[in-house]
Amino acid sequence: MKQVIDFVKTNREKEKQPAESLGFGKYFTDHMFVMDYDETRGWHEPKVVPYQPLTLEPSSMVFHYGQAIFEGLKAYRTQDGKVQLFRPNKNIERLNFSCQRMSIPTLDEELVLDAIMQLITIEKDWVPDGEGTSLYIRPFIIATEPYLGVRSSKRYKFLIILSPVGSYYGGDQLKPVKIYVEENYVRAAKGGVGHVKTSGNYAASLKAQEEAEALGYDQVLWLDAKENKYVEEVGSMNIFFKIKGEVVTPQLNGSILSGITRSSVLQLLEYWNVPVSERKISIEEVFDAYYRGELEEAFGAGTAAVISPVGELSWNNQKITFAQDRSDNIAKRLYESITNIQLGKEPDPFQWTLEVK
Amino acid sequence: MKQVIDFVKTNREKEKQPAESLGFGKYFTDHMFVMDYDETRGWHEPKVVPYQPLTLEPSSMVFHYGQAIFEGLKAYRTQDGKVQLFRPNKNIERLNFSCQRMSIPTLDEELVLDAIMQLITIEKDWVPDGEGTSLYIRPFIIATEPYLGVRSSKRYKFLIILSPVGSYYGGDQLKPVKIYVEENYVRAAKGGVGHVKTSGNYAASLKAQEEAEALGYDQVLWLDAKENKYVEEVGSMNIFFKIKGEVVTPQLNGSILSGITRSSVLQLLEYWNVPVSERKISIEEVFDAYYRGELEEAFGAGTAAVISPVGELSWNNQKITFAQDRSDNIAKRLYESITNIQLGKEPDPFQWTLEVK
Repeated sequence: MKQVIDFVKTNREKEKQPAESLGFGKYFTDHMFVMDYDETRGWHEPKVVPYQPLTLEPSSMVFHYGQAIFEGLKAYRTQDGKVQLFRPNKNIERLNFSCQRMSIPTLDEELVLDAIMQLITIEKDWVPDGEGTSLYIRPFIIATEPYLGVRSSKRYKFLIILSPVGSYYGGDQLKPVKIYVEENYVRAAKGGVGHVKTSGNYAASLKAQEEAEALGYDQVLWLDAKENKYVEEVGSMNIFFKIKGEVVTPQLNGSILSGITRSSVLQLLEYWNVPVSERKISIEEVFDAYYRGELEEAFGAGTAAVISPVGELSWNNQKITFAQDRSDNIAKRLYESITNIQLGKEPDPFQWTLEVK
Repeated sequence: MKQVIDFVKTNREKEKQPAESLGFGKYFTDHMFVMDYDETRGWHEPKVVPYQPLTLEPSSMVFHYGQAIFEGLKAYRTQDGKVQLFRPNKNIERLNFSCQRMSIPTLDEELVLDAIMQLITIEKDWVPDGEGTSLYIRPFIIATEPYLGVRSSKRYKFLIILSPVGSYYGGDQLKPVKIYVEENYVRAAKGGVGHVKTSGNYAASLKAQEEAEALGYDQVLWLDAKENKYVEEVGSMNIFFKIKGEVVTPQLNGSILSGITRSSVLQLLEYWNVPVSERKISIEEVFDAYYRGELEEAFGAGTAAVISPVGELSWNNQKITFAQDRSDNIAKRLYESITNIQLGKEPDPFQWTLEVK
């Protein structure tokens, strides 16, 4: 039986920003979805309410022991004015995977999809239609029990908030990014939580990110914790290298996030008959391939940035750069195909999109 | 110049719980300390206010990217009714160390000590005097900027809350704990944030902790991320082994928390001329020493639990147990000496205690 989602309408609608000043994750819509968990009632009282601050005890466990997970997906306005989601079920599946690893009670996946659909139906006017814009959807769960012992919380809050967004890095979507290969800091170890969308992973990455920025780089490329040798992922993206026509990306190994754009890239490449391989790849192999003239391209893939070509990669005092004007450029082709599918400009052979009616 | 801390008194004092029902971190006092940070004013408006819920935007960065750090220390009521702190400067130093690693603006250490002293002066009646009780002090910082881009926050809230507590594990303070050596999950890697008191470390440990509890163990002993071989720390304690009269504890290596009780144990042992060594120690060496009859004792040390003797250690399907009635038992001697110093029952040769006047 389908659970009923209550709705309390706001009596104060906010003003919408013009597309060009949206940025990323700065503005939020008029409503949000909320559902609470406790031991006796389980997840209960799903509702859409006016967007409003949360009132939490200072001892709420999320502040102290970081039990928090999230997802990120987008709703797009198509050319003919429809609104559609991109592979929402993958995000909902991953949300429950994150729940399991972080000892948080899992959610009814059907209800979560229903919540997203209802919330976006209510906020339909907030889905922007400017070039490169979308409505970013942020489902998240936080531990709310007021208790300072170290154990998993007995109370949680699940929320979905919406933010109309432009390009993640600002400016042109396909602007090449400069990436710094990090050798001192480590993001995640096998057996840890690097493959989970949990808040602590991001906090742990900030220092390296800031040091890279101070050196003029946009993002950090992480290496594995064990040997400081194998490529893992970029701050907010999975990474891909095209070597002698084959696209190589690190295999999912328990410390890399299983990106949904990553999975879409792999599916598209196979569909196009482009050779593709998920495997361990060392940073040395990447640089050796470059020096042999065999590394044709590097790019990142993630929901926020879609596809970001790498313009420069720096490792161990060596800088390598990538020309962006190759006729066989695959990053540009992937970007266009994925965004065209998202925007309904091109057929969707994989049934990735889901219309919000 | 000393900063003035404002004080808004509550008009509704809570009822205090009897010592035996305190538990750990369940009850909080009438007031808390709060101070905010923004880019233009820095840390500003330090104040003691009635204990109250926090009102935070759902997009506050702490919920999403886990930028949160904390400390834990205790105030003790001495036999003659005074209230004293145990090495508060070490906690305040470590708080700033955590700030630095997690890209949070550091605090004026003098002001933090002053805040603790003033808050406890106001809440003096909340310092319990039952056997094994104390007033647990929880300073913490959370990222409050409402923004979803991954970078460090531009706004923070620093709070100090107080909780009258009994024994951390419940029951007798010196009850031996059963420890499970974790081989599948990893807590922290070198280059990560394992040596920092940041919330994400604790969230990442919950699953292993729960699986160990399901097998009948109290706590997990973590091994290193690189070789899954060297002893790191227990969930909420540093670990010590006594082998042929020498006390051995893992050296600080960038993934182990630099415990203040750990440091006190090392100082006391040196003062007593007990041989002591901070070095890498593999779990295999621990078990080998046991089988040779040379492993005399194992114990944990931490603020919450003080000293916890290990009763049983399980690794790789081998269980080893420790008799608690040896006449040369060092855990008991350490526990008594540290708690006697904390409670003013024995001289304090290191000036560890600081009276709250």
